[in-house]
Amino acid sequence: MKALLDKIRRGDRRSLGRAMSLVDQTGDQARALQDHLRQSTGQVPWWGFTGPPGVGKSTLIDALLTRLRERQQRVGVVAIDPTSPTSDGALLGDRVRMMRHAIDPDVFIRSLATHHREGGLSDAAIHCARLLEVGNFDPVLIETVGVGQNEVDIASVADICVAMLGPGYGDDIQLIKAGLLQVADIVVVNKCDLPEATRLLKEVREELEFDSSTDGGDEVRPPERRCVGIEAKTGRGVEELVDQLLALDAAARTAERRHHYARRRFRGEVSRSVLQAFEQALERELNEARTDDLLARLDRSEISFDAVVAELNAQALAKAPGEAPGK
Amino acid sequence: MKALLDKIRRGDRRSLGRAMSLVDQTGDQARALQDHLRQSTGQVPWWGFTGPPGVGKSTLIDALLTRLRERQQRVGVVAIDPTSPTSDGALLGDRVRMMRHAIDPDVFIRSLATHHREGGLSDAAIHCARLLEVGNFDPVLIETVGVGQNEVDIASVADICVAMLGPGYGDDIQLIKAGLLQVADIVVVNKCDLPEATRLLKEVREELEFDSSTDGGDEVRPPERRCVGIEAKTGRGVEELVDQLLALDAAARTAERRHHYARRRFRGEVSRSVLQAFEQALERELNEARTDDLLARLDRSEISFDAVVAELNAQALAKAPGEAPGK
Repeated sequence: MKALLDKIRRGDRRSLGRAMSLVDQTGDQARALQDHLRQSTGQVPWWGFTGPPGVGKSTLIDALLTRLRERQQRVGVVAIDPTSPTSDGALLGDRVRMMRHAIDPDVFIRSLATHHREGGLSDAAIHCARLLEVGNFDPVLIETVGVGQNEVDIASVADICVAMLGPGYGDDIQLIKAGLLQVADIVVVNKCDLPEATRLLKEVREELEFDSSTDGGDEVRPPERRCVGIEAKTGRGVEELVDQLLALDAAARTAERRHHYARRRFRGEVSRSVLQAFEQALERELNEARTDDLLARLDRSEISFDAVVAELNAQALAKAPGEAPGK
Repeated sequence: MKALLDKIRRGDRRSLGRAMSLVDQTGDQARALQDHLRQSTGQVPWWGFTGPPGVGKSTLIDALLTRLRERQQRVGVVAIDPTSPTSDGALLGDRVRMMRHAIDPDVFIRSLATHHREGGLSDAAIHCARLLEVGNFDPVLIETVGVGQNEVDIASVADICVAMLGPGYGDDIQLIKAGLLQVADIVVVNKCDLPEATRLLKEVREELEFDSSTDGGDEVRPPERRCVGIEAKTGRGVEELVDQLLALDAAARTAERRHHYARRRFRGEVSRSVLQAFEQALERELNEARTDDLLARLDRSEISFDAVVAELNAQALAKAPGEAPGK
């Protein structure tokens, strides 16, 4: 493992790719690598990009890559890959454009196939981002499509969260906007050549202003969240966005902020793992025959729903793995 | 409670609205009502509608309401309301159009504000759908915006799941398509006046054909899932869709299918409640100081990540409520 990590540190792209495949497996080797990465990384801010489907995330990241390379940054990207095996390829233009940067030795793009239909971030994405840190990529960009809650919420993983909005979502834009404004450090409104986007930009600015005047909550969220209007395709507004991102990035490098993010990521990882173990125990407990029995007792008013929940809770608890598997 | 339910059965809309507010609360009265609804409903198929933001769900439901009313159906609708308090109203045209049906005594539309930013289905939506059954609305339509996993997955709640797709989502359409095809009984491609939608329709048809030839899984999913191309705004294709929905609806009324759906809904409700109780116990356990301590031990290699998970699992288990809180 040490040899592999040394190679990655020296810039060996093949080793980096191999480690990214290894770290997503389940054996002892993968676990040892994961634990090592948890300890040895966390100094590089991660920039998360999220927004509804079709808003232009890949196009924006493509534009950012060009500008960050002009400023001599080595950039790593973790992207959730929406490629379906039956796609005809014609629709994948945006992603193809971004991938042209992949031949640049100072850019590394990892497309992760989605394991689940949610299309969200997985633990695999977190491991890959850590490996990019080992390979001296800085910053690390993570792209994820978002409307509902993703499997792992980008906002709890990224140090800087960029939320993208744009025209063309009808009434649903209100729902998207409400969700994204809660987690965004920077709101980017794309396709600002269109009137609907201009109106959206105005709305978001008003809401952010209102929000910052009443908000006294999270101490690490920047006091003034910004909203930038861009045209990702032509690059208009992207330079301003890069400046703002780099300013946030610099602010995220204090010891206090690093500790905050390390704790948050670790806590998220632990929670997910513990919950998953419990959920599996519950699934085993709540099999078909058992469900039918409980349902019948409920129908005969022999038991209340609350009592069903309490009963299952006690039984799943008794059977969930509570012993350390080693160590 | 009996008096309230009797009024709802006789068509008193105000009582129905009051019960919908009551059932979402936490007291004994709400719990008793929930338990009663669990036992006394489940005979009416629920039609779920999901799809990415802006695909035209409200517009389709508006068109369906018109046609179902022509066929003398009394229709109930549960819609997740994306209205944000600062919206200027101008964007809410689709929803407003749908709401014009709300003055029809044989239509009842309940807009549920989203409690969480996910915008998904909540337990409240399930309770409301059950109350619509009590009020003799048949069928019950449930609308939810979907890309990621919703808080409660529409596919596990609805008897018939309609997935909507359309043009304008760039590469992300592959991800959306892959997710929705897994849960849909009927795939609706909207905006079929646009060339991108026509291509999408062709793609979906090919995938469904391929899928049905290899699939031997779920016994209750109709053997041939259909794909219908429509223009929700002009109504083109909607009549064909209504025919197909009513055919599926009729098929969903056998005793076997009713039992299947009752079990699935109940199981989902139980799982969510048990998991929630456990998650709260875990949250209390995994407080800030505790996280810092574990993180420090991990950094000093005194403990592995797996051991952290096992330790927390055991402790959260010990503290989760395992006793019945009264029948």
